[in-house]
Amino acid sequence: MINITTQSVGLVEPKTMHFDEALSLVCGKVLEQYDIVYETYGTLNAKADNAVLVCHALSADHHAAGYHSKEDAKPGWWDICIGPGKPIDTDKFFVVSPCNLGHCSGSTGPRSLNPDTSIAYGKDFPMMTVVDWVNYQQRLADKLGIKQWAAVAGGSLGGMQALQWAIQFPDKLHHAIVIASAPKLSAQNIAFNAVARQAIMNDPDFHDGRYYDFDTVPSNGLKVARMLGHITYLSDDAMGDKFGRELKNEQLNYDYGVEFQVESYLRYQGESFASRFDANTYLLMTKALDYFDPAEEEGGDLSAVFKKVKAKFFLASFTTDWRFSPERSKEIVSALTDANRDVSYLEFESNHGHDAFLVENDDYIDAFKAYMQNIEVST
Amino acid sequence: MINITTQSVGLVEPKTMHFDEALSLVCGKVLEQYDIVYETYGTLNAKADNAVLVCHALSADHHAAGYHSKEDAKPGWWDICIGPGKPIDTDKFFVVSPCNLGHCSGSTGPRSLNPDTSIAYGKDFPMMTVVDWVNYQQRLADKLGIKQWAAVAGGSLGGMQALQWAIQFPDKLHHAIVIASAPKLSAQNIAFNAVARQAIMNDPDFHDGRYYDFDTVPSNGLKVARMLGHITYLSDDAMGDKFGRELKNEQLNYDYGVEFQVESYLRYQGESFASRFDANTYLLMTKALDYFDPAEEEGGDLSAVFKKVKAKFFLASFTTDWRFSPERSKEIVSALTDANRDVSYLEFESNHGHDAFLVENDDYIDAFKAYMQNIEVST
Repeated sequence: MINITTQSVGLVEPKTMHFDEALSLVCGKVLEQYDIVYETYGTLNAKADNAVLVCHALSADHHAAGYHSKEDAKPGWWDICIGPGKPIDTDKFFVVSPCNLGHCSGSTGPRSLNPDTSIAYGKDFPMMTVVDWVNYQQRLADKLGIKQWAAVAGGSLGGMQALQWAIQFPDKLHHAIVIASAPKLSAQNIAFNAVARQAIMNDPDFHDGRYYDFDTVPSNGLKVARMLGHITYLSDDAMGDKFGRELKNEQLNYDYGVEFQVESYLRYQGESFASRFDANTYLLMTKALDYFDPAEEEGGDLSAVFKKVKAKFFLASFTTDWRFSPERSKEIVSALTDANRDVSYLEFESNHGHDAFLVENDDYIDAFKAYMQNIEVST
Repeated sequence: MINITTQSVGLVEPKTMHFDEALSLVCGKVLEQYDIVYETYGTLNAKADNAVLVCHALSADHHAAGYHSKEDAKPGWWDICIGPGKPIDTDKFFVVSPCNLGHCSGSTGPRSLNPDTSIAYGKDFPMMTVVDWVNYQQRLADKLGIKQWAAVAGGSLGGMQALQWAIQFPDKLHHAIVIASAPKLSAQNIAFNAVARQAIMNDPDFHDGRYYDFDTVPSNGLKVARMLGHITYLSDDAMGDKFGRELKNEQLNYDYGVEFQVESYLRYQGESFASRFDANTYLLMTKALDYFDPAEEEGGDLSAVFKKVKAKFFLASFTTDWRFSPERSKEIVSALTDANRDVSYLEFESNHGHDAFLVENDDYIDAFKAYMQNIEVST
């Protein structure tokens, strides 16, 4: 059983908000109605000026902090950063953490029933983009009585949402917290996503995205996709330190089973993920990453896009992150500086690769906390 | 039709050597008999002291230079380095380029008939290691009347064979040319190989390696494996320069088809490879990479292993190679230096990632040529 410390938000419960106002999407389709599952931590103050929106990345969801039950093995995905006395201090801020449209943890997504057909959407679920997520998040803010976020925060794909918020609704947030992120995917990033998708779509149990109707799941394909993704989340150094060439058994077997610990670890990670995640959602999230490119509307000139931004920015990157390297954060910093915006940027030493934004690290936590402490909210 | 220049070895023809002396393998199994397909370029001199063994990497084979027919679109895989006036100058050297055991281009491998069963070996083909390849190559040298190689040369997995030659038969070579290689795979290298193999073995057409008997091939799995491999051969920069976020069509379709040029390129590369390469060989070659670890016999102390080495070394690496980065070559250089061996090492600027050892580059070619010119052979 867990030991819920005073720095935890404790036991939390997801809520569901139903929306029946149609949402027009970038892809041209329309979602007539949808549900959003979300969690909140802390208390919204009287002026509703202490709200922080937390946006999740590819495989996380609305469960960002605390525990769903005392039996939970692990807290929410950003528990190191959300709670009393933590960077996003729930004694000060009211945190809203929604599960994105298209995901598989409760908000409307490919696994949900399509009201037009009364079967699961599957491949008919419309393609999502970061712009669409920011749009539903804005509606959620409206319903919660939040006119302006004190901050919008996220890491990786979550950081992209924070960035997009600053561009899309410049008057509706004071601060954008963009961690371990990038202004758009590189060709290599897109390539890795393409391989992951190919692995899923090749799986004979994928049935062109209609596997729910066949009572099966493309778990082999999803497993390969996740194994590949996992390599890109870790640093070469960290994998070397953790596994090196350590063998699974005492000696080599010279067969096609698992020989090295790192293979065993990856297979376990892949299987565990495939047992809980939806393959259509994985496809959709990687596409949302591919499509993100806010500079496009200004012909690739990110600083021109930032001209309309009013939020102050906090950016952070990690030395061994090779998925979204510090150079990618510096592209954002540089464009913000060119546009004369207010930006704080820090690069942290870490051995944890892209996953570093999810890992306890004093320098990172202290700097993040200091920045958040300086955000003014009414009492 | 090709224009065969004076710097080409011209039209070449593979030869086959049959071996009926049993070969004991590291895995514990024995190959009772086998064929080796190989090419030669240049002329063996009277003292047989001008022979250079060229060792191939994962997907290449014995066809290292020249053309098989005037209709060939491309010459052999290392044609930039082998020919009259090139680094491995065929006016001076006699080049032997064999296809490794386990490969799918003519030498005995998984696709060959197993004499015990009269059907293709398939998954019963024994696991190969670099040590085994050096053993058959030594027998090939014997049959060709070559007591000592002027040099053994290769890039990547081919460089590992050159390294292993220096350790395994210290008296049988004068120079080891080890390009874009590594003393062993890192955990990350092994992890990428594990994902590639998983993709192949997941393919329902794989039939546990017995797909020949089912008259099919696991081309979807092999395609994914190659797409992944291909990403690791190219540099992030080169992919960015070549493709960036360029679209395949004029506008985004917001579907799961190909949106970006880089996806289209990777799919094409994957399909092209899957149509010509054998999946069991791909599995076997990645395992040979995984198993390579010459320092193991000295408890991980590479310099201790190099104490017995007599060959002089030429090592080269390329700045943007992240599969086998310059640091990996430096590990070899450092261990050779610790063992007081004779070593030349150069790191070349290149945008081509791991593939740089196959790409024309003046600095690389000039340095390689200068080194080879100083190798003394009788006239």
